[in-house]
Amino acid sequence: MSIALLSVFDLVGVFVFALAGASAGVAKRLDIFGVVVVGAASAIGGGLLRDVLIGQTPPFVLRDWRYLVVSTAASVMVFYFHPQVSRLRRVVLLSDAAGLGLFVVTGTAKALDAGVPAVGATVIGVLTGIGGGVIRDLLTGEIPVVLRREIYALAALLGAGTVVIADGLGIAGPASAAVGAAGVFGIRVLALVRRWSAPTPRDVPTT
Amino acid sequence: MSIALLSVFDLVGVFVFALAGASAGVAKRLDIFGVVVVGAASAIGGGLLRDVLIGQTPPFVLRDWRYLVVSTAASVMVFYFHPQVSRLRRVVLLSDAAGLGLFVVTGTAKALDAGVPAVGATVIGVLTGIGGGVIRDLLTGEIPVVLRREIYALAALLGAGTVVIADGLGIAGPASAAVGAAGVFGIRVLALVRRWSAPTPRDVPTT
Amino acid sequence: MSIALLSVFDLVGVFVFALAGASAGVAKRLDIFGVVVVGAASAIGGGLLRDVLIGQTPPFVLRDWRYLVVSTAASVMVFYFHPQVSRLRRVVLLSDAAGLGLFVVTGTAKALDAGVPAVGATVIGVLTGIGGGVIRDLLTGEIPVVLRREIYALAALLGAGTVVIADGLGIAGPASAAVGAAGVFGIRVLALVRRWSAPTPRDVPTT
Repeated sequence: MSIALLSVFDLVGVFVFALAGASAGVAKRLDIFGVVVVGAASAIGGGLLRDVLIGQTPPFVLRDWRYLVVSTAASVMVFYFHPQVSRLRRVVLLSDAAGLGLFVVTGTAKALDAGVPAVGATVIGVLTGIGGGVIRDLLTGEIPVVLRREIYALAALLGAGTVVIADGLGIAGPASAAVGAAGVFGIRVLALVRRWSAPTPRDVPTT
Repeated sequence: MSIALLSVFDLVGVFVFALAGASAGVAKRLDIFGVVVVGAASAIGGGLLRDVLIGQTPPFVLRDWRYLVVSTAASVMVFYFHPQVSRLRRVVLLSDAAGLGLFVVTGTAKALDAGVPAVGATVIGVLTGIGGGVIRDLLTGEIPVVLRREIYALAALLGAGTVVIADGLGIAGPASAAVGAAGVFGIRVLALVRRWSAPTPRDVPTT
Repeated sequence: MSIALLSVFDLVGVFVFALAGASAGVAKRLDIFGVVVVGAASAIGGGLLRDVLIGQTPPFVLRDWRYLVVSTAASVMVFYFHPQVSRLRRVVLLSDAAGLGLFVVTGTAKALDAGVPAVGATVIGVLTGIGGGVIRDLLTGEIPVVLRREIYALAALLGAGTVVIADGLGIAGPASAAVGAAGVFGIRVLALVRRWSAPTPRDVPTT
């Protein structure tokens, strides 16, 4: 993938993550500024976390104004048109899966570039992908959905692992990045379609 | 404003933010150490976030002992005298508005100095102002109040915008900082007095 | 203490903090990936926070793969054997007290080494010790237990203070570190055995 294409994909990821975050804000009846803050935090939170952890400050998402404009626009759109957005639920879920794939892959690659070893780079890649959603859920008073179901963390982990392994084999590049991102996307879509879920603990009394 | 005056104002901001944080801790019946931790986190959280995002570590609030002494003292005061503090609710709200103004303005100016572009500097300024309150609400199990009402985020945004625009016009300095801080203060006070609030989403079923 | 011994103690601390975090995840009926994420975040969260605050990025816990392997293994163990783990509750509490002591002492020492002044280094030491538990409680939707009871924050504060004072007197070294860590451990164990608790605010209506 060319840099320009990656950049477009990155902005699409920010857009759909902002949609999901702003929808959560609307569901909690936040006012318009609260909806924008939750939407933007969901969209850029993962990238912020990544850049702080690899020591590249100020974070990239704060140095390129397009990230904030796109996430604000998506949030305002949700605020005014949320019944229509919720009818698009399937589109949002698919885009979220695509965004997750891209964020995980670019986060892992950036961490490797910054000299983080394999295991640490995997963690940073996963955090880049799931960080925004975790921030969204904390801000709206929910236990993060990524912790609760639907093979979200596993998909992210496999995507990050693909990039790390390709890097270890000396074959990192656009092709392995695309395979990693597509893998994340595919697992998420399959999990949604087939209602897969990971094992939950046995013998815990329901409280 | 001279540096010395700014520094005094900064400490006043820390003091009143600690009062608000510690009061929230008392309302949740935390013990004295919990009250101090929530008070201090509310007071210095915004500054910590700002310095981590612009890469100025260790953060300033950890390098100058007065910030921690002032926020601890304010928290202990609230713990022992909270019925009197709650009678001073109006004073705390006014001081909080003043603290917000100052933190937003100094946060934005510091980010611009660190080379963050306009849009990113605005975000960092807003985060400096609202960060402590968000941390307070997360620690005490509440959805952050800044997301829910009273034009808090809007006031912060306008204050940060004033500094950024003044900087763009080449007229940044004590005067524009004072205008920005006073603007934040004025909007917050008007919003409190007139019970202004921002639009909330239509058609969301109450849950 | 030699470096090798410190490193072993550090990994033991990571292990027991992961046990406590994963147990909280199981109690919330998270799936296996959620349990691992909460366990790992509890175990390495304090160290992440410490390194970000002192500007040593990428954080140490992401540069040494053993931290993540140990915390993942502890979490998986809890997921599959949690009834047995909960029977070991006393062991986990004792180990947690030991881990707290070690994390506080090493966190404070690292902050002093990085040039953070005494008061700030104390705060960073306390955050290193309590940070993982706070992250665990936020992720599982609880008010952080460190804020609520059992002299947890006080023990951490005294341990950090011991290191800072020893440093000020020019007698910092393995001996003072051991005294600080043992002091934290002792206070925690006494607080658990004797059911000590810190004063809570008077006159707050139960809500």
